[in-house]
Amino acid sequence: MLAQRIDRLTSSLVRDILAAAQRPEVISFAGGLPADEALFRPSPAAMQSLPDVWQYGQSEGEWVLRELVALRVNALGLACTPQQVLILNGSQQGIDLVAKLMIERDTPVLVEAPAYLAALQAFRLFGAQCLPVPVDPRAGVDPARFEALASQARLTYLTPTFQNPSGYCYGDAERNQVAAVLDRAGAVLFEDDPYRDLSYDGPAPAPIAGRLRQAQWVYQGSFSKTLAPGLRLGYLVAHPALMPHLVRLKQAADLHSNRLSQHLVAQVMADGTLDRHVAAVLPLYRARRDAMDAALRRHLGDLAQWACPAGGLFFWVRLTERRDTMALMREALRHDLALMPGEAFFQGEADASYLRLNFSHASIERIDEGIARLAGLLRAQALAA
Amino acid sequence: MLAQRIDRLTSSLVRDILAAAQRPEVISFAGGLPADEALFRPSPAAMQSLPDVWQYGQSEGEWVLRELVALRVNALGLACTPQQVLILNGSQQGIDLVAKLMIERDTPVLVEAPAYLAALQAFRLFGAQCLPVPVDPRAGVDPARFEALASQARLTYLTPTFQNPSGYCYGDAERNQVAAVLDRAGAVLFEDDPYRDLSYDGPAPAPIAGRLRQAQWVYQGSFSKTLAPGLRLGYLVAHPALMPHLVRLKQAADLHSNRLSQHLVAQVMADGTLDRHVAAVLPLYRARRDAMDAALRRHLGDLAQWACPAGGLFFWVRLTERRDTMALMREALRHDLALMPGEAFFQGEADASYLRLNFSHASIERIDEGIARLAGLLRAQALAA
Repeated sequence: MLAQRIDRLTSSLVRDILAAAQRPEVISFAGGLPADEALFRPSPAAMQSLPDVWQYGQSEGEWVLRELVALRVNALGLACTPQQVLILNGSQQGIDLVAKLMIERDTPVLVEAPAYLAALQAFRLFGAQCLPVPVDPRAGVDPARFEALASQARLTYLTPTFQNPSGYCYGDAERNQVAAVLDRAGAVLFEDDPYRDLSYDGPAPAPIAGRLRQAQWVYQGSFSKTLAPGLRLGYLVAHPALMPHLVRLKQAADLHSNRLSQHLVAQVMADGTLDRHVAAVLPLYRARRDAMDAALRRHLGDLAQWACPAGGLFFWVRLTERRDTMALMREALRHDLALMPGEAFFQGEADASYLRLNFSHASIERIDEGIARLAGLLRAQALAA
Repeated sequence: MLAQRIDRLTSSLVRDILAAAQRPEVISFAGGLPADEALFRPSPAAMQSLPDVWQYGQSEGEWVLRELVALRVNALGLACTPQQVLILNGSQQGIDLVAKLMIERDTPVLVEAPAYLAALQAFRLFGAQCLPVPVDPRAGVDPARFEALASQARLTYLTPTFQNPSGYCYGDAERNQVAAVLDRAGAVLFEDDPYRDLSYDGPAPAPIAGRLRQAQWVYQGSFSKTLAPGLRLGYLVAHPALMPHLVRLKQAADLHSNRLSQHLVAQVMADGTLDRHVAAVLPLYRARRDAMDAALRRHLGDLAQWACPAGGLFFWVRLTERRDTMALMREALRHDLALMPGEAFFQGEADASYLRLNFSHASIERIDEGIARLAGLLRAQALAA
């Protein structure tokens, strides 16, 4: 007999679709994969200049990397010391650790609607009662609704910067307002910020965590989107009251993170390579985003609405007519097109039919071809209906 | 307000002692660290011949490594396919995943007494009610006691090969008997086997998991003790009914394991380096084990009993007189000697006063010096009492 939580361990749609999208003939808008040509590949010299990383390391992470992360986070306007930095195997691990820290059966957790689906899955695994706050891709969250739910929640999970999937970025005033609400409500803020550096139209506003005066918080970032997912490295920074628990949870989870990757990342942060690499990647992603926006206008203008995202990796496309987007996804796969149905990103009912379309992985030519194919499918379905 | 499980998140004694033992003047018998000179360090050529590992990988692990692990596990007498292999960030992660799979509040879990303390901590974190079965360092487990508790337990956690901390290795007949009991009881076996390759007096008997006919099982191993802990790699192999859940739990925990480390290990498994490396390390560890046995006889013969372990990394020393071993540990640290009090390895009361002494990390000279220092402390305490 397994633990009851296993009944709540839903099949991961992403996983299944990504497996299907592996075939090279498939045009994939499904994942959140960086472009292969944008991946950071350490030089042979870097691989050979690693320090002696083969013995057990610290659960918190390598000190040199914690110092560099603290500097970077401070520069964003979130004050922290290196002692508040915990190095993770990618930011997915931060979701697991914070869930362990905060969530048990029926713990109320405020989430955005839509929200990052792997966070929803992890929270549900630990028994969370998710309280969804609608995020309008153009107007953001409704302040009264947010305040009502934040006062009930023990944990508030937000991805305010180029949210996955909606692409929405909370403005400065909205961030201040959210921080003030959380200070009044006393719920812990969990701010997930993996897309901040992928900002195509100017820098994003400072993190919400840095605007709090009372509430406790965990802020996390990732090197998967800016350097390479295969490094499996992310970090969290936590309020001093939460940090000792998170370090112990990390130790119980896997003792410590991979030391090779930690020193490879520390090198590229220290010598400026990280920032140069991001600067070099942005034009590529910006061009692909613009290509998808143009392709959507060209092929789907009468069938859907969307806001062109200022950062991140996704278009969040609202279909004008209600569709079964799960069925559409399966039909698209039969036509060698992979996309993500919107309903996976909602806790409960969605208010309309959405698709999440990734623009970072496919080439510009394939983006246009894929969107045209999607339009063809929608039109054929409309005729058949 | 944090989750209730955080109240059960005990301070890790290992962690605190290891931190204190970092000072170079400290002779440390406290950790379970491989000798620095025994660590496997990949060649520059190996580091440069990695495949393109920078994109997201599979949650299950890299296929080439899963195949190699399956071959190795099959050679131990445990039949499995590569599809049953899940690559982990070290075997501590397997403990976390199996705890998530099986343990909720008050789940009865059979554990050895003594048992690996980080497993006890993880099980308690998830709310387990641990049912301890005494392991006699010379005679093993009492069969009737084992059967009575196995029939109550939902999960049975065993480290039958050079157990940490007792050093005990279950014999062939005992393994068959345990397997038969588990088949009757229907409890899931979780067999943790990180020390198998560190066998100094001939090969260890085949895993218990391979002797089961009915019961479900998870078997796990590690590359931390044979290659290098900094690689953070281990693996589990699971009964087909459990594997899909474990893969999803791994995905929810951190998506996948580090791909650099996976390919470095696959290389050294494929070309025979792993086996050559282990063969080269064994004489070093055997000499240190023999040196500690001789030092114990020389300095502590009248103050303690122990069995010389046939494998693994530890002596499990029973003090002839009852002592407060926590106080002894603190006193030893003041004399630049680190050791592990036995009580951390018990769920509930220990039957006597024990110390766990690691013999792999300190040099032969320092082993003798450290044991002499320990004997001096014990004699001084006895005089003072």
